Amino acid sequence: MTSLPMILVLHGPNLDRLGRRQPELYGKESLEEINNRISDRASALDVGVTMRQSNHEGHLIDWLYEAEDDGVKAVLLNAGGFTHTSVALRDAVAAIDVPVIEVHLTNTARREDFRRRSLIAPVCKGTISGFGADSYILGLDAASRL
Amino acid sequence: MTSLPMILVLHGPNLDRLGRRQPELYGKESLEEINNRISDRASALDVGVTMRQSNHEGHLIDWLYEAEDDGVKAVLLNAGGFTHTSVALRDAVAAIDVPVIEVHLTNTARREDFRRRSLIAPVCKGTISGFGADSYILGLDAASRL
Amino acid sequence: MTSLPMILVLHGPNLDRLGRRQPELYGKESLEEINNRISDRASALDVGVTMRQSNHEGHLIDWLYEAEDDGVKAVLLNAGGFTHTSVALRDAVAAIDVPVIEVHLTNTARREDFRRRSLIAPVCKGTISGFGADSYILGLDAASRL
Amino acid sequence: MTSLPMILVLHGPNLDRLGRRQPELYGKESLEEINNRISDRASALDVGVTMRQSNHEGHLIDWLYEAEDDGVKAVLLNAGGFTHTSVALRDAVAAIDVPVIEVHLTNTARREDFRRRSLIAPVCKGTISGFGADSYILGLDAASRL
Amino acid sequence: MTSLPMILVLHGPNLDRLGRRQPELYGKESLEEINNRISDRASALDVGVTMRQSNHEGHLIDWLYEAEDDGVKAVLLNAGGFTHTSVALRDAVAAIDVPVIEVHLTNTARREDFRRRSLIAPVCKGTISGFGADSYILGLDAASRL
Amino acid sequence: MTSLPMILVLHGPNLDRLGRRQPELYGKESLEEINNRISDRASALDVGVTMRQSNHEGHLIDWLYEAEDDGVKAVLLNAGGFTHTSVALRDAVAAIDVPVIEVHLTNTARREDFRRRSLIAPVCKGTISGFGADSYILGLDAASRL
Amino acid sequence: MTSLPMILVLHGPNLDRLGRRQPELYGKESLEEINNRISDRASALDVGVTMRQSNHEGHLIDWLYEAEDDGVKAVLLNAGGFTHTSVALRDAVAAIDVPVIEVHLTNTARREDFRRRSLIAPVCKGTISGFGADSYILGLDAASRL
Amino acid sequence: MTSLPMILVLHGPNLDRLGRRQPELYGKESLEEINNRISDRASALDVGVTMRQSNHEGHLIDWLYEAEDDGVKAVLLNAGGFTHTSVALRDAVAAIDVPVIEVHLTNTARREDFRRRSLIAPVCKGTISGFGADSYILGLDAASRL
Amino acid sequence: MTSLPMILVLHGPNLDRLGRRQPELYGKESLEEINNRISDRASALDVGVTMRQSNHEGHLIDWLYEAEDDGVKAVLLNAGGFTHTSVALRDAVAAIDVPVIEVHLTNTARREDFRRRSLIAPVCKGTISGFGADSYILGLDAASRL
Amino acid sequence: MTSLPMILVLHGPNLDRLGRRQPELYGKESLEEINNRISDRASALDVGVTMRQSNHEGHLIDWLYEAEDDGVKAVLLNAGGFTHTSVALRDAVAAIDVPVIEVHLTNTARREDFRRRSLIAPVCKGTISGFGADSYILGLDAASRL
Amino acid sequence: MTSLPMILVLHGPNLDRLGRRQPELYGKESLEEINNRISDRASALDVGVTMRQSNHEGHLIDWLYEAEDDGVKAVLLNAGGFTHTSVALRDAVAAIDVPVIEVHLTNTARREDFRRRSLIAPVCKGTISGFGADSYILGLDAASRL
Amino acid sequence: MTSLPMILVLHGPNLDRLGRRQPELYGKESLEEINNRISDRASALDVGVTMRQSNHEGHLIDWLYEAEDDGVKAVLLNAGGFTHTSVALRDAVAAIDVPVIEVHLTNTARREDFRRRSLIAPVCKGTISGFGADSYILGLDAASRL
Repeated sequence: MTSLPMILVLHGPNLDRLGRRQPELYGKESLEEINNRISDRASALDVGVTMRQSNHEGHLIDWLYEAEDDGVKAVLLNAGGFTHTSVALRDAVAAIDVPVIEVHLTNTARREDFRRRSLIAPVCKGTISGFGADSYILGLDAASRL
Repeated sequence: MTSLPMILVLHGPNLDRLGRRQPELYGKESLEEINNRISDRASALDVGVTMRQSNHEGHLIDWLYEAEDDGVKAVLLNAGGFTHTSVALRDAVAAIDVPVIEVHLTNTARREDFRRRSLIAPVCKGTISGFGADSYILGLDAASRL
Repeated sequence: MTSLPMILVLHGPNLDRLGRRQPELYGKESLEEINNRISDRASALDVGVTMRQSNHEGHLIDWLYEAEDDGVKAVLLNAGGFTHTSVALRDAVAAIDVPVIEVHLTNTARREDFRRRSLIAPVCKGTISGFGADSYILGLDAASRL
Repeated sequence: MTSLPMILVLHGPNLDRLGRRQPELYGKESLEEINNRISDRASALDVGVTMRQSNHEGHLIDWLYEAEDDGVKAVLLNAGGFTHTSVALRDAVAAIDVPVIEVHLTNTARREDFRRRSLIAPVCKGTISGFGADSYILGLDAASRL
Repeated sequence: MTSLPMILVLHGPNLDRLGRRQPELYGKESLEEINNRISDRASALDVGVTMRQSNHEGHLIDWLYEAEDDGVKAVLLNAGGFTHTSVALRDAVAAIDVPVIEVHLTNTARREDFRRRSLIAPVCKGTISGFGADSYILGLDAASRL
Repeated sequence: MTSLPMILVLHGPNLDRLGRRQPELYGKESLEEINNRISDRASALDVGVTMRQSNHEGHLIDWLYEAEDDGVKAVLLNAGGFTHTSVALRDAVAAIDVPVIEVHLTNTARREDFRRRSLIAPVCKGTISGFGADSYILGLDAASRL
Repeated sequence: MTSLPMILVLHGPNLDRLGRRQPELYGKESLEEINNRISDRASALDVGVTMRQSNHEGHLIDWLYEAEDDGVKAVLLNAGGFTHTSVALRDAVAAIDVPVIEVHLTNTARREDFRRRSLIAPVCKGTISGFGADSYILGLDAASRL
Repeated sequence: MTSLPMILVLHGPNLDRLGRRQPELYGKESLEEINNRISDRASALDVGVTMRQSNHEGHLIDWLYEAEDDGVKAVLLNAGGFTHTSVALRDAVAAIDVPVIEVHLTNTARREDFRRRSLIAPVCKGTISGFGADSYILGLDAASRL
Repeated sequence: MTSLPMILVLHGPNLDRLGRRQPELYGKESLEEINNRISDRASALDVGVTMRQSNHEGHLIDWLYEAEDDGVKAVLLNAGGFTHTSVALRDAVAAIDVPVIEVHLTNTARREDFRRRSLIAPVCKGTISGFGADSYILGLDAASRL
Repeated sequence: MTSLPMILVLHGPNLDRLGRRQPELYGKESLEEINNRISDRASALDVGVTMRQSNHEGHLIDWLYEAEDDGVKAVLLNAGGFTHTSVALRDAVAAIDVPVIEVHLTNTARREDFRRRSLIAPVCKGTISGFGADSYILGLDAASRL
Repeated sequence: MTSLPMILVLHGPNLDRLGRRQPELYGKESLEEINNRISDRASALDVGVTMRQSNHEGHLIDWLYEAEDDGVKAVLLNAGGFTHTSVALRDAVAAIDVPVIEVHLTNTARREDFRRRSLIAPVCKGTISGFGADSYILGLDAASRL
Repeated sequence: MTSLPMILVLHGPNLDRLGRRQPELYGKESLEEINNRISDRASALDVGVTMRQSNHEGHLIDWLYEAEDDGVKAVLLNAGGFTHTSVALRDAVAAIDVPVIEVHLTNTARREDFRRRSLIAPVCKGTISGFGADSYILGLDAASRL
């Protein structure tokens, strides 16, 4: 690990299918392509970055605690469907001292009613949603300034 | 794998205990016995069938994507308790091109209020519930006609 | 009346217009064509079948009681719009000893919020919805096994 | 007016008191200081920028239409308290072809329940909230990429 | 395994961080220290005790069934955030014949509204909440008397 | 028709099956037996009485207006399932000058939630519920005193 | 005490002011006059009757238990405002083996929304409401037939 | 039938009692007088008109389909109490290609809460309410311009 | 001002953009064109008419009072987005003796849920909605008959 | 301006019509007469007083900030219909250091449901409502003691 | 009793502990000190005053009726926790001809949600809340002017 | 009174009937027997204990304040039906410095919906429910450790 400040990007459930999954909604870029763009931006900002994805709520919780143990500077969290249902994940975000930024590809306010409530948002630093993959880039910018 | 059209049957949480778990509610057949009946019916219908069970939401999501990658014809999904709580699972059902049929052993409309809302149903092809293990057999028939 | 076990199929309000009414939603088959398919399937299953349709809630209630008086084995009930509003029809379903299977052409969970609640479902044996006219065929299969 | 692409920043009610108003919540920078930072960032991004503030819902609506008439590229809108109450403002955002980005200084999800619902968000391109005055800077970046 | 009656203590998500996680809320004792106190109390009560923790809903479900298979006398379950969201876990608690006692470190009634509803409580024997780590000790006493 | 003051007893949907329909709930007396008891009581009270039953909402409405035209003194109305769903029937009750007394065999407050609200009650003179067939007898007494 | 079957009439809060209190709503008879009518009717029915009134919830609870201890045949309970708010009184009604009949002077369904829900009704034998002081007389008739 | 464009006016439940039913609310004109005014206006507009009334939901549904079969130009529908409760009627309005205009004598927004929601309105062309019998005349004008 | 009876037409927020704003929803006519049609119709009806538009709630309130001071015969009010949010505007409508007719271009019942509730409607004479610009013409006809 | 402590009285929308507007509800005094009584009382209390009225939410917000800038001792605010709808006005009340006293002529608790919730009250010092114009006088007394 | 007009001040539950009970919320004055201030003010206003306190709902109801019997001019009622829960107390306030003024020490709108609804307020003359013990003094002033 | 630390046990409404009242729900032990078990346990723990029961909310409030005046170490409170309805009792629990432990015989989460909300719990130290009379013993243990 370098001595650069590190940022962790957590991709939640279903995000490994980006590019294939409802591209009219989520865009045509694959997760790998987005991760590459995130890496490029991190280099430009002189921060390190790690990206992880899981469909398991438990893994995301585990990784948030590891982030705290590893001295990570900030976390970008796209919790996907867990955003609206997981108190456990919320508790983990609240438990760590690392600031967490909530990121969404789509503008969740335009979608189904059950996506209106984010259980995660009240314990995050802030939220960026609706800009497609650019939401991650803007989130990285925000994280690097914290 | 044969060249038959394949159908995936996904059993969600707690279904591995069928036969032992509240038999007055869920019936006396074990999951193995039900799976055998499903296999027999599949043979009669000239379709292939695979059955998987997990108590982990993440595994069910993973298997839905594998089903799409494997060119499965249809999925029978008994999501158990996740039916009412998992936006992540719903998102996976919506994401794949494979039609998914929602199946329940019991008539969930007779039970607790929180079982009234299915998050899965709006993104499924259709629903069959209340016929005990026959719900799977009817679902298989429905799937084979799609 | 033959000595075959008899099944009654009740079509509720607006179903006499099938084929003409919003075919993108309800399909292109007329009620007569669907009834023919039901008859064919009944022959194959060695059960008798009667089909009736009405736009009057009172007729459906009357016919449910006649079914009990006639010793009908099971009822398939597509209550149409009454599904969501008729306590009187629910009371009739609950009152008779004949098992009733709820059938819908469309996946009602995908539609308006007021179609989410079925007053009929909690007193039925089970529900089959979303398979178009095949919902009746699957329902007939289910009924013949009761 | 220069030939640069123009971005309009609309500050809604109470924002003229920034720096004086509950600084523990909204920060110590005055609106003027924030506007200066926005201008500096605009220069760096090679876009033009105009900033306006009003406590009158009607003025904000008028200015949105002027923005469309003037061929503005994008609008950053911090609607303040109108975010949660103004259907009229929402209608204006929906009416214009110019993309609008919703911006908030605070993380509104942490605050009173009535701030949970944004009437504006469903008709905006996206939302950035919780980063203090940096929310505007991030919004400007997002706008410049549209 | 000894011939003592066995009690299983299940710690749900985020509880592995006790002592570090918001100590003003959850206390300064680590999970290990609490487990030691539970062991000591078990010895005094002449019962055996096993403690397990997971951030995965699926593991907790698996362990509940193992407890039934192993003939465990009772389970103490602190389901953490799953308390309020997991129908699947509730179904497992309801499915086993082993009595389950719900335990919480904090007085959940003092906290966020979404913590008011426990999906687990209606299928548990009883609930003990608000006494910090002593909630487990009281729960162990209760379990030993069943 | 005699010159006695006349009382109309309207039995709503499903009441023609009394004695056969869920006798543990509605009692073992048939509608004919109840009507005989009502007639006997009417004789004792020196009032005339007519009893009518229908499963059709429209008939009940028609008969309420006929009652007004015929100069009936009062109506006993057991609207069955229409109690909770029929605004049209309520409007008819409100429209006539004849006082209407709401009668129920069962204590509807003990039953399903949707039976809690009576649309009819607010436009009736009063309500008598829970005394089985005696509810009609008490209603007749009340009517004869108006 | 005579060997007649005894009936207890409990008048809840504010009923001691009958005749003076909003006579357009509650009638012009005083509580004493109503009690006299109740006594007269009891004599005609050959039952004994005791009438008690209190503005204290605790007294009503005490008296219900005394009624059970005294072998009272039935209780008429006009719980007044406690009808809508007192779980403690409901628990007492449910606790005793004596049947309790809910009585109201007014048709509570015509009044404020908070009077729509009776906490008492689900544990009573039945309800009579809206007939003014005659509600008690009808209730006495009902009680004498139990 | 003439070659004039035809308009069907459907009067729902209770409207046959106009003039007698709560004239302070619904006006003093009888249905016959209103129908005469409608006929006069139709002549002036050079359209044909048919008026029908029923207290039976089923008849209204039947007549809507007949209107479509007869090539009627538009329907004026005053669904009375069915407006707020009938999904079946709504489905019929949605099913036919003939435009339907919702008409009310009274301003339903001034009345009981349950009259606030029209199930019919979302599938109608438009609504005219509150002008007494003039609502029909205005509706006829609107229909003739479609 | 002429001696003709005068009618005031108030256009609320966003209506100055008609023809440009979402024409698929609001039509292609500009406000000027609609106003011309209103003027023409007024001439035909022998009434005077004034049209005003504002995006400011306060102006609409001011103008309603001026209308009363000027002896206007009736007001047509399309309150746009204020319809659903402005108690102040409702209070002004209720305060003046001039009858106010609520007008909408679109059928608001087909649109977002928050457009279902009109705060204005309960204090208006009546409502006309869904006929595009013809809603104003029909409203003018209605006003001229008051 | 004198050196007396100053109190600002803000009259919100529709209050300029007092005396003319629904006098049975709001009283017969004009705003001018009330202002005169307020002035007289201020003289008696040895405080200065300024009165302003607007139908524009924006003006009230502007004036609250001016009050803070001018070193006003307290504000009496009758926000009229904005009381129930304006988050922007609430934010201004919360933003200034000057204590604000909420005043209403009528007892808003007796009126429509939507008047039950005051968005302003939680950020005010206290509330005085229901005493007609005396509410202002009592508010002035309260203000002078702060 | 003197010939002065008399005012009754009723202190509800928990108010006997003022000064000791949560002084940061309710102030440091004891009930005795507040009563002394009330007495002093009454002397200045030339009215008589009586103060009573009880933790028993029944006593408060009794005393309200006594007040009416004694010809009291007005009642100041701080119903404490009963404000939000007691229909019986509300009924008593509504039953007497004496005007009742609702008084609260704290601004209840700032506190828990369940304190938002006052069952008492709609039947009181007016409300004064949030001024600490001065709420009583202002209430006495208001009462003396009635 | 001894010099031992004292604990007060408050039994709320209906608890004096334990053993007789619905024993399938509340157990067969009388209150006296339970009190004896509490006394025995107190001796074993070397604490003093006093037990009081009342059906009067006011008495429970009075006794809580006496407990504080007497220097009691902790209170066990089984508020029975008041748990769900009494703000006044909650206020008393919050007012005293003595810690209060909420105790229930039954698992209230299994019962009626209105028992889900405890008004008392948020101001108590913790809750123990569902263990029958053992709930008191566990509560005593918890109290002795505070």
